[in-house]
Amino acid sequence: MSILRIGRIELRVLDLKESVDYYTRFMGLTETGRDDNSVYLKAWDEYDHHSLVLTEADSPGVDHVAFKVRHAEDLEDLNQRINEWGLSTEWLAAGSRLAEGEALVTTLPTGHRCEFYHQIERIGIAVGNTNPEPWPDDLQGVGVQRFDHCLLVGNDLEGATRFFVEVLDFHQSERLITADGTMLATFLHCTNKAHDIAFLKGPDTKLHHVGFYVGTWDNVLKAADLQSRHGVRTELTPSRHGLTRGLTTYFFDPSGNRNEAYSGGTFPYYDDEVVTWTEDQAGKAIFFHGREMIETFGEVFT
Amino acid sequence: MSILRIGRIELRVLDLKESVDYYTRFMGLTETGRDDNSVYLKAWDEYDHHSLVLTEADSPGVDHVAFKVRHAEDLEDLNQRINEWGLSTEWLAAGSRLAEGEALVTTLPTGHRCEFYHQIERIGIAVGNTNPEPWPDDLQGVGVQRFDHCLLVGNDLEGATRFFVEVLDFHQSERLITADGTMLATFLHCTNKAHDIAFLKGPDTKLHHVGFYVGTWDNVLKAADLQSRHGVRTELTPSRHGLTRGLTTYFFDPSGNRNEAYSGGTFPYYDDEVVTWTEDQAGKAIFFHGREMIETFGEVFT
Amino acid sequence: MSILRIGRIELRVLDLKESVDYYTRFMGLTETGRDDNSVYLKAWDEYDHHSLVLTEADSPGVDHVAFKVRHAEDLEDLNQRINEWGLSTEWLAAGSRLAEGEALVTTLPTGHRCEFYHQIERIGIAVGNTNPEPWPDDLQGVGVQRFDHCLLVGNDLEGATRFFVEVLDFHQSERLITADGTMLATFLHCTNKAHDIAFLKGPDTKLHHVGFYVGTWDNVLKAADLQSRHGVRTELTPSRHGLTRGLTTYFFDPSGNRNEAYSGGTFPYYDDEVVTWTEDQAGKAIFFHGREMIETFGEVFT
Amino acid sequence: MSILRIGRIELRVLDLKESVDYYTRFMGLTETGRDDNSVYLKAWDEYDHHSLVLTEADSPGVDHVAFKVRHAEDLEDLNQRINEWGLSTEWLAAGSRLAEGEALVTTLPTGHRCEFYHQIERIGIAVGNTNPEPWPDDLQGVGVQRFDHCLLVGNDLEGATRFFVEVLDFHQSERLITADGTMLATFLHCTNKAHDIAFLKGPDTKLHHVGFYVGTWDNVLKAADLQSRHGVRTELTPSRHGLTRGLTTYFFDPSGNRNEAYSGGTFPYYDDEVVTWTEDQAGKAIFFHGREMIETFGEVFT
Repeated sequence: MSILRIGRIELRVLDLKESVDYYTRFMGLTETGRDDNSVYLKAWDEYDHHSLVLTEADSPGVDHVAFKVRHAEDLEDLNQRINEWGLSTEWLAAGSRLAEGEALVTTLPTGHRCEFYHQIERIGIAVGNTNPEPWPDDLQGVGVQRFDHCLLVGNDLEGATRFFVEVLDFHQSERLITADGTMLATFLHCTNKAHDIAFLKGPDTKLHHVGFYVGTWDNVLKAADLQSRHGVRTELTPSRHGLTRGLTTYFFDPSGNRNEAYSGGTFPYYDDEVVTWTEDQAGKAIFFHGREMIETFGEVFT
Repeated sequence: MSILRIGRIELRVLDLKESVDYYTRFMGLTETGRDDNSVYLKAWDEYDHHSLVLTEADSPGVDHVAFKVRHAEDLEDLNQRINEWGLSTEWLAAGSRLAEGEALVTTLPTGHRCEFYHQIERIGIAVGNTNPEPWPDDLQGVGVQRFDHCLLVGNDLEGATRFFVEVLDFHQSERLITADGTMLATFLHCTNKAHDIAFLKGPDTKLHHVGFYVGTWDNVLKAADLQSRHGVRTELTPSRHGLTRGLTTYFFDPSGNRNEAYSGGTFPYYDDEVVTWTEDQAGKAIFFHGREMIETFGEVFT
Repeated sequence: MSILRIGRIELRVLDLKESVDYYTRFMGLTETGRDDNSVYLKAWDEYDHHSLVLTEADSPGVDHVAFKVRHAEDLEDLNQRINEWGLSTEWLAAGSRLAEGEALVTTLPTGHRCEFYHQIERIGIAVGNTNPEPWPDDLQGVGVQRFDHCLLVGNDLEGATRFFVEVLDFHQSERLITADGTMLATFLHCTNKAHDIAFLKGPDTKLHHVGFYVGTWDNVLKAADLQSRHGVRTELTPSRHGLTRGLTTYFFDPSGNRNEAYSGGTFPYYDDEVVTWTEDQAGKAIFFHGREMIETFGEVFT
Repeated sequence: MSILRIGRIELRVLDLKESVDYYTRFMGLTETGRDDNSVYLKAWDEYDHHSLVLTEADSPGVDHVAFKVRHAEDLEDLNQRINEWGLSTEWLAAGSRLAEGEALVTTLPTGHRCEFYHQIERIGIAVGNTNPEPWPDDLQGVGVQRFDHCLLVGNDLEGATRFFVEVLDFHQSERLITADGTMLATFLHCTNKAHDIAFLKGPDTKLHHVGFYVGTWDNVLKAADLQSRHGVRTELTPSRHGLTRGLTTYFFDPSGNRNEAYSGGTFPYYDDEVVTWTEDQAGKAIFFHGREMIETFGEVFT
């Protein structure tokens, strides 16, 4: 299997104009297109046409996540594997969204819509590919570098983990478990990121957060400074996760979808042993410095 | 007037052995001497024999703070100025504490014992004064660089401010005020530190925290990582103060005295205008990222 | 194909004792074993028994590099692919080196011995896998996190690139080319590192440098501070590469093998377009800040 | 004596337009006024009308440096002390330059014009004084925080040191000396900066560099990245000075005046002992990482 990465996420937002303003001016993404209901955005260090799609809706949340496969023919292969594993699939025709080719669609054991795709228009990175500068000189706000990962909420974490490992050939980097071994959180990667996708025990179909990569601990500080300056609602001030070792701050977009400015996590390989966090250390696992659960963390999902 | 800096603070601690262990192994200070009731410590980048004195007592808190004057003769001059301003003084004979010369003692308008001294034995900085390395290679734990400042609690902040400005020739860098102009916090410096000493509105004679300088935002992270590792009680995970712009984490010594690992604040000059924070922005003033008062901040004093 | 990473490098060193001292006390690796001629070392964030082998010899340089494959059966598959591509192979029996299973051996188009292996004893990461701290508390010296990559020297860069791309399914992230398109440097990855292995135009079989990952720009500073403190020969003080955007310092082990403390490079995906640097910008490509070739860079190989 | 700081420096530049463009767009200063021959600039974290004056001339260099005194009456006192020490003085009438009051003028033992002043118009810091953000959101280029110090070149370093210490009550933080004790460099401060002014042995009246404060090691990197991007001539890529422990990069303005982006140096007090560097360690003293003299450092003066 050759899944390249989590390539995009589509979020439901309450007010499209306000949301686009937030994701461009505050987060530093670039709008690359729009159609009837949606606006498409990319980060400066991404090649593809978009990694974030914002769609106006009555309630916030995640419409779908999508993984990019390396070769066009991987989709058919994947279709068969998914079906054999016992999930149904369907095809989304090319052009259903802006700049995208066809996509294979399934529903994860946690109820989330999940797509796989290969074709998408290319825009290229902001610094170009010939003798490039290391960073663009016109970054806005937080200036996130790339869409990094997302954390989804659902009940069947064992099922989700098995699906990603057995069908999609992901590797589990870390997990949080109860004393009887039930997973409360599972972290899965197909790249060398600490997680391309992760799941938290809770109600199906929900979104916990979208993680954007900001490169350094100094940039996590900058993200937090800007949250304060612009009155963006903050949940977690700069800290470290025990899980993934990541440096982080959590905050909310105008619709209440949680964002993360993330940096500095582990670089797992497929032969790494899973890192296990036990429920009695759950506070430390998630909030390594505060070592206590922040109530909203386990309650506010969109 | 020529006050060089806040030179030392004496803390009351419940268990001397446990406290020395904490301030040496965890905070990275060096024990430089001990007498009947007290242990004396210095940080690696300080010349004088000690900047922190730990004394066993039934309750935690601050025994006294002390300012070092530039010339021996400044003490007599200071004595006269303090008396003229209306506070009484007394002299503490040389040798009353280890390695110290005589000290002039007064009581601040907030009830705290405050000393002034010139003579103290010299030990020198850990890296030496000839072709020195930039940092010592045997730092323990947080490895604090120097005692930086303290925040005391008291009622008469106007009186304390006037005393430091009028008698000791300090300059006020920042203040937090109510709508009617009453000071809730006052920040005073005689160096180019954002504060050598500061006062918070509250019950007299109390200590809010002792601030130690750690140099960088990365070292604030290190301090927080080590708090988690060693189970040190944390109050504020890495963040910024609006007041002073400082980068910080708050935590408690084994007796409950609050410590701060501080870095990156302003560099005020005597002709800077005072920075004013208004009570309606008090959360942001103190916790720039979280923007909400942490309850214990205004309640836990020693 | 499923090559996990560049798993180890064996260096020839002039004085084994002095070299072990350097790689443990200065670089912060841990000795994990030794046999007649060699000492085996690992970094704190690595699972396998060793990533660096030091072998005493009359001249410095690289004995071999080795890539770890995901499954035992990948080796046979790889053997066939290599042979079909036109290179001969041989098998190295399990136990030929400490803690290693069998290895498949070939010679790269640049003359370097290159091995592939699956089995190696496991020691595990220094922080453990259950509720781990984010970093170990007993790091020595530079405290490198992992063996990251190496840069080899050779003539046939086109051949080497084709071998890694066509046979081993690597992806080329960046390249430095002359006006007529000849490659002067090629950067190849099988992980999301900017390079697992790279080649520089020059005499065959030579080593340019071994890159160790240190995590942050602050740690690059620490590495440079320690080079100065310990009299380690430095070639490049802290800087950035244009190629890979990496933050770096170059210095030499006691035998003259060049080391790099590396951090902060790109995170390439397989569908990224190659970044091309042109020869007229070679100075900037390699030394982004100085923008001029450092003479020894292109002359000192081991 | 109460000298607040080195308050301004006037540089001679070859092309005023080009220079203003460099100091505003690249360095991030703000133009605050201009008169017939000169342009006045300030950094974002400074209160006074200007700290840098650029004046068009046939050759680059320093026209004068100026120190701000705390009280208006300090000037007359200073006049007397300077005369008593044996240097002649004259008065520069208020309004001779934009926004400035009268100034006392003398010539240093190294031939440099040196002024003292109290009155200057106030503009204030970019973030304001009421509930301020920690940094302004419209920084340009390097975005320097303040004019920090300068290094002048001259022959009589003993005389210059005595003048600053005996007459102006500065303190010597560090020095570089030959085996027979002759000073090759002297670092002098009246604040808690590692140096407000320093002198290097060489031809009289010359400028070595103007130092601007950038706050962090990350910002030194940013300054170096921008030098490369904009083709600004670099002399020293990011490094540390042994002297002052400062983190630094040297580069040149369009007229050839050397600039420094400086961060992280020591915080000396008046009772610190002087740090002495010996000539045999001069390379390390100045270029702590490279440990060798950069030729142009001792040859290019303006």
